[in-house]
Amino acid sequence: MLIAGRDDTIRYDTDVLGRRSPASWVARPKGLEDVRSIVRWAYAERAEFVVQGANTGPVLAGVPRAGRHQGVVSMELCRSMIEIDVPNRTVTASAGVDLDSLNVLLARNGLTLPIDLGANPSVGGMVAANTGGARLIRHGDVRRHVLGLEVVLPDAHATVLPLLRRLRKDNRGPDLKHLFIGSSGTLGIVTAAVLSVDPLARHVATALVAVHDGDDVLRFLTLLEARAMEHLAAYEMLSRPTLEAIAKHLPSGIRWPFEPSRTSDLPPFLILVELSTSDSANDRHQTLEDDLTTLVGEGSALGWVTDAWFGRPATLWALRHAAITALHQEGPMVAFDLSVPRSQLFETRDQIIALVAGSAPHARYADFGHVGDGGIHSIVIWPQEMHAERRDDEQDRLRDAMYHLIAAADGAFSAEHGLGPENESAFRRSSPDVRDAQAALKALFDPRRILGAVDLS
Amino acid sequence: MLIAGRDDTIRYDTDVLGRRSPASWVARPKGLEDVRSIVRWAYAERAEFVVQGANTGPVLAGVPRAGRHQGVVSMELCRSMIEIDVPNRTVTASAGVDLDSLNVLLARNGLTLPIDLGANPSVGGMVAANTGGARLIRHGDVRRHVLGLEVVLPDAHATVLPLLRRLRKDNRGPDLKHLFIGSSGTLGIVTAAVLSVDPLARHVATALVAVHDGDDVLRFLTLLEARAMEHLAAYEMLSRPTLEAIAKHLPSGIRWPFEPSRTSDLPPFLILVELSTSDSANDRHQTLEDDLTTLVGEGSALGWVTDAWFGRPATLWALRHAAITALHQEGPMVAFDLSVPRSQLFETRDQIIALVAGSAPHARYADFGHVGDGGIHSIVIWPQEMHAERRDDEQDRLRDAMYHLIAAADGAFSAEHGLGPENESAFRRSSPDVRDAQAALKALFDPRRILGAVDLS
Repeated sequence: MLIAGRDDTIRYDTDVLGRRSPASWVARPKGLEDVRSIVRWAYAERAEFVVQGANTGPVLAGVPRAGRHQGVVSMELCRSMIEIDVPNRTVTASAGVDLDSLNVLLARNGLTLPIDLGANPSVGGMVAANTGGARLIRHGDVRRHVLGLEVVLPDAHATVLPLLRRLRKDNRGPDLKHLFIGSSGTLGIVTAAVLSVDPLARHVATALVAVHDGDDVLRFLTLLEARAMEHLAAYEMLSRPTLEAIAKHLPSGIRWPFEPSRTSDLPPFLILVELSTSDSANDRHQTLEDDLTTLVGEGSALGWVTDAWFGRPATLWALRHAAITALHQEGPMVAFDLSVPRSQLFETRDQIIALVAGSAPHARYADFGHVGDGGIHSIVIWPQEMHAERRDDEQDRLRDAMYHLIAAADGAFSAEHGLGPENESAFRRSSPDVRDAQAALKALFDPRRILGAVDLS
Repeated sequence: MLIAGRDDTIRYDTDVLGRRSPASWVARPKGLEDVRSIVRWAYAERAEFVVQGANTGPVLAGVPRAGRHQGVVSMELCRSMIEIDVPNRTVTASAGVDLDSLNVLLARNGLTLPIDLGANPSVGGMVAANTGGARLIRHGDVRRHVLGLEVVLPDAHATVLPLLRRLRKDNRGPDLKHLFIGSSGTLGIVTAAVLSVDPLARHVATALVAVHDGDDVLRFLTLLEARAMEHLAAYEMLSRPTLEAIAKHLPSGIRWPFEPSRTSDLPPFLILVELSTSDSANDRHQTLEDDLTTLVGEGSALGWVTDAWFGRPATLWALRHAAITALHQEGPMVAFDLSVPRSQLFETRDQIIALVAGSAPHARYADFGHVGDGGIHSIVIWPQEMHAERRDDEQDRLRDAMYHLIAAADGAFSAEHGLGPENESAFRRSSPDVRDAQAALKALFDPRRILGAVDLS
């Protein structure tokens, strides 16, 4: 169960962006009782550790904290249980089961866990981060899907909270499971979850829609929600600088949908709009496509939509998912995962652009994201050739200013990536009363503070 | 702000079922600072109190606990704030605002808080109970709609947790608001909430469908979810004994939809099926009705549906909402608010019926409920003429046996009514580790145990 050699731990102590902080030890429990044994030992020895799922998170929450002696408890071998209950529309899964494997099995039963990402996280990791993704506007976050959890507390007894319930309605006192959802592995170790799943989408219609400004992005969204709320499955924005990067670094196999002449004259914003239905009847596909054409036509007649491309979902989503990789190739970057009330999203975006120009004069700005939910991934990119030390200075200054700005806008410094050392400086700015309460919860569940890369105090 | 006279407090210390337990005092704060003053005073004096919204709850959580000297903090005057943000699809409301008033204002903006009940609770009460209702299958519970809360803690400082956020994606450490949602007023006082609201339903199609047995109830539900998930807005069951009571005590103005000859030959189960859409286009009404007719036809061809009545939504819902009032007229009752995984709902129901026959031989059984979510309201009715003491004995024995049964079935003794003195004996049976954690949270947030009718320990 234990891996101790320095070379063997590299998989576990290097994060998805290649940042390494060596693990004191790595343990790979195979199930609940293994987890409990590790916890009892760690408690007795005051040995700190992080819990790691598929190690896909970008905020350093699942790797050892730099400068501290921390072990890694990898849940990758906790995969023994996948129980699908079709009439209940639930699946009970061990923490180490990955999203793609789960969805392959669910699809055979006409079901899906509709969390759409460019990564393949584990069940436990998704619960810890309360993962969102591109279909949140329709299907909600992971929290909405969690009906039950099994949690091991990092206390002397490795207490198990037996909350592995399969109920859609359950209100019999404070609901403990919600403490562990979205708490980024700071309060307990999720070993299994019961997830409510949805009927598989059977027909999908997608379009890329050009929009001139932020007001029109929101106006068109409001139109879509009023007229097609039940079918609206995505409303994803790509801004011009992001489109330019995608055009430049187009992955092989992806077709660029615009005429070559248009590439130098891209719209300020493209929106990927998706309508979908779980109804398998053949005629529904045409209905969805007709509805989308009609709605885009109305947006066009109102002057909100300036151009539109209808295309196969796989093609348009490939373009959308190419964004982050393309931007990575443009130079060293800092990526912010922000959200604000969506009614003020583009006002805040203007402030962000002005702030980047002021705080990081050598950098460029690009963004994309889940604007239907008020989420935006703000990416700041420095020139490759810039001296690393000067760049680091600008990055530190920018982070500080950005977290100040987003707090002033009543926004979140972490919309869907959770809390980790990466964004801990923003956490330290939150309301003292909120932090006091979070610290008290931490003391309650993790009295020796052995768990997690972030200390909630 | 204070009401002290015994006669004036009757409104506040009598519950919706007419049970009275005199309040030591009643306070009616007008806003946050009033609430804080009361809390500081109560903390200093160790004065216990319950928080009361619209006093519509049936589990005695919002009235003073019998045998204890408790005051009532009524939130009915906390109504100053209702702020609707249309592009964000949110409303920020004071705790004392009632659901119906809120929905009247929201409807003017094409929006709705889709919590459907036979009562008119307050915002704070709905948050405390995590109210469900008849549209949960489509729109979820109150928790799903809460984006932010303002909470006063019952501590020395009357600490305010400023969590009144309007974000759909927000994951920056343990999310404290979920501790207070569904905790039945035991951990803090909700003074305001930000709620995500939905586009108003513009077209609705309803049918009453006769089904022969529980297996077919679930089979037809699975068919509807596979084919019309996006539009399925209700799947509500009325069993034969409930239908008989409704027929007998039909409220004036409600038409009985069946031929008189059929009333003596009612089906074992009727299901109210509703499809709806927020799309206002005129042709959608016909589409919805056609879809419903087709699906009922398919259910019929498969032998799952034995008969069907299509009718105006108002008419069919009036029948559904008449259930509890009609049963009340049949005699003294105990009403259980249960849920189980819906895949085992009717198996559990068979056990419940056997248990009632054994434990309460003089009583009759009737039920109805939200079977689409695994929820069932199990009603046990005693003859009017039975001696009260003997009836009380049977009731106590039955409660005990029922709570044992529902725990063995991995179900919830409170699906949507929350926790109160009414069902506290079931709470005492839950897992000791879960109760320990709940008690620790109680000690953390309410160190002098001044808040609420239930003591979580």
